[in-house]
Amino acid sequence: MKVWRAVADRFAFVEFDGPPLEPLELYTKKSGEEIVGQLYNFTDKGGREVALRPEMTPTLARMVSAKANALRKPIRWFCAPQMFRYERQQRGRLREHYQVNYDIIGEADVTADAELLAVAIDIMREFGLTSRDVRARFSDRRLLRALLHQAGVTEGQIPGVFAVLDKIKRQPENVSLERLAAAGLNATAIDAVMSMTTADTLGVSGASAEVERALEPVRRYREHLSHLGVNEWVELDLSIVRGLAYYTGVVFELFDAKGELRAIAGGGRYDNLLESLGGENLPAAGFAMGDVVLTELLRDRGLNVTVNSPDFWVAGDSSEHDPNVMRTATALRRAGASVEYALRKQQLPKQRKAAQSAGAAYFVILEDGFDKSGAIRVEELGESGGRDAASPLMRALADRPATLQSLLAVLGDNPGMLP
Amino acid sequence: MKVWRAVADRFAFVEFDGPPLEPLELYTKKSGEEIVGQLYNFTDKGGREVALRPEMTPTLARMVSAKANALRKPIRWFCAPQMFRYERQQRGRLREHYQVNYDIIGEADVTADAELLAVAIDIMREFGLTSRDVRARFSDRRLLRALLHQAGVTEGQIPGVFAVLDKIKRQPENVSLERLAAAGLNATAIDAVMSMTTADTLGVSGASAEVERALEPVRRYREHLSHLGVNEWVELDLSIVRGLAYYTGVVFELFDAKGELRAIAGGGRYDNLLESLGGENLPAAGFAMGDVVLTELLRDRGLNVTVNSPDFWVAGDSSEHDPNVMRTATALRRAGASVEYALRKQQLPKQRKAAQSAGAAYFVILEDGFDKSGAIRVEELGESGGRDAASPLMRALADRPATLQSLLAVLGDNPGMLP
Repeated sequence: MKVWRAVADRFAFVEFDGPPLEPLELYTKKSGEEIVGQLYNFTDKGGREVALRPEMTPTLARMVSAKANALRKPIRWFCAPQMFRYERQQRGRLREHYQVNYDIIGEADVTADAELLAVAIDIMREFGLTSRDVRARFSDRRLLRALLHQAGVTEGQIPGVFAVLDKIKRQPENVSLERLAAAGLNATAIDAVMSMTTADTLGVSGASAEVERALEPVRRYREHLSHLGVNEWVELDLSIVRGLAYYTGVVFELFDAKGELRAIAGGGRYDNLLESLGGENLPAAGFAMGDVVLTELLRDRGLNVTVNSPDFWVAGDSSEHDPNVMRTATALRRAGASVEYALRKQQLPKQRKAAQSAGAAYFVILEDGFDKSGAIRVEELGESGGRDAASPLMRALADRPATLQSLLAVLGDNPGMLP
Repeated sequence: MKVWRAVADRFAFVEFDGPPLEPLELYTKKSGEEIVGQLYNFTDKGGREVALRPEMTPTLARMVSAKANALRKPIRWFCAPQMFRYERQQRGRLREHYQVNYDIIGEADVTADAELLAVAIDIMREFGLTSRDVRARFSDRRLLRALLHQAGVTEGQIPGVFAVLDKIKRQPENVSLERLAAAGLNATAIDAVMSMTTADTLGVSGASAEVERALEPVRRYREHLSHLGVNEWVELDLSIVRGLAYYTGVVFELFDAKGELRAIAGGGRYDNLLESLGGENLPAAGFAMGDVVLTELLRDRGLNVTVNSPDFWVAGDSSEHDPNVMRTATALRRAGASVEYALRKQQLPKQRKAAQSAGAAYFVILEDGFDKSGAIRVEELGESGGRDAASPLMRALADRPATLQSLLAVLGDNPGMLP
């Protein structure tokens, strides 16, 4: 959650939230009655048909439509709510999970799509993952359509072909061939579709005018991704379709590079959805990332899933209760630090053990004469304590008097020095 | 939410969350069957009796009990969830609202109570409120009991007297007198109770041994609050009882000083609750603060309720798309700043207007020759732009070359310089 929020902040997304409980028809209107079987729905005390939200987009559409004129465009909103489904639980799919959603509404250009993919990748980077751990694969519904038209696929055959493309890398080739034939494609069209997912389409020659038109935003998208510093994570993959019917432009998914898990994140452009849900006609793009697959990936890679440790643990050098411990904790907290101390009288070694167990970065001991001189001793705890080079904070303290005043001065000069 | 989380971080509280939906019996076990009328409860698809949570403490108790042995003590947890009740809505009471909860579990000493009140007051301070805007009033159930015993009130009469005390400042004196008589108190006891809420009890002389014993933690509590720097916000008020039956020690509430609104926050010590809910026997204290009254108070005082603005808006000095805008935004984001830029081609004045409307603190214009020199111009936007003294960032930039490199160096030296 901290990472999701920190990255949102850097990209100037504003957090919103909606009710966990929505009218059932908000979901049936978008996905049809068959969605009800997967929903955690019920009739409430007032006889209303309601459901615990399975996704955020309908809520977002409703909220944006309600205030569309008053909102500054483009709208850059994110939220990190709990989602619910009433289904059998399995690996990577729980009945309740968190999902962060980032959306840009009111901008049709691929600059918005590029911002969104940069957000998704920046989250990966913030967790310590690299482009060797995670791959972003994108496609574009407009390009797919143009290529299929060029291959002789009719508009009516496209939904069937999209369904095959979506699974083409996860099912045997003969199954794909059969399904394309069943969708009504002739042998030439089937060949063209099967080769689409391997050919480097961006360098294609002899493309139709429609394909050329569709390639222009895709090329600009790649350029933007390069300017946003994420190009090495990204590849074009025409088998990325995304199941949902409402995407209209760029679609993308993030996968673990080993291909062992479900998609980490996915999204795309949905320019017609807001209007079709009864709202404003506003172009929009967004993506969602759940906590379940991401947590599995971080655990597999041995990376920290939760980080929540105080910067300082303040200790009195006596077993008596020392009011200066509370005063020092307060002074450090007002300097912006996260601070804990023992709430009951304890010997110093026990306090140090508690500090270590809390994962505190530094152990601050109030020395004899603290009242007059502010004398303290700062110890670096944890793994970093064993390294040859002390932390920037320890180095900054090294050539100053060992007092609380020095510590506060160092923090005042550079609050970014805290972990 | 940002303030709630920032203060929690300073006081080394760890965020937890639980399901919005809990078994109905979790609430009836604590509060009796009569609570059901206020709950948003229903029977789910699997025939389970469930309710949308009306409060967090039962969930907290259940979660702590499930892992009591594995958790480091004292447990310092907070959460900021949505709560639900199925009641008529009124000012300061909505059907769905947010409530932050901070709890310290596993520490019986008043040091924990003092930490909690310091958290509540630090939140007020962080919102720009002062001890003239908000008052913290506390009492102690042990002291109340001792004073009532000394006044001749029997143990059996105490619940009735607590109920009167709880309302004594909000109802006519004769009503309180009648209710105390109805609770079975004689004239002397009634006099004693009526004078309790005005006398300065901490200076009481001729106190019983039980009162003296009960005064000791109260005196230490006040001292701790002083060391934690919040004493001027706090007063002893023996009419603070808190409705809930389960409090066992210090109880407190935060009010707007004008007395126009409901309590902003309230809490106290509940040493027996976890065990009575079927969990571990662990001492505990905590408080809750909702968003509704707090928001009303901030609006009444003309204080910012939402703060969510980018640090920088990056603009190209041409109507053509400039890849350097994205590159500069990326560099500033990697330095930890919150950055936005126009996603479509716009003239400079329009970009500046968009930056102002987004509430950006600084407007960064890429100058001619940026490619070679990194030349930029930084403007301070918004209210602060009109002040005589420029911001620390503008002053730090003043004696350096006007380049992106200078800006990044200033931020690298002091990330705390950002708003």
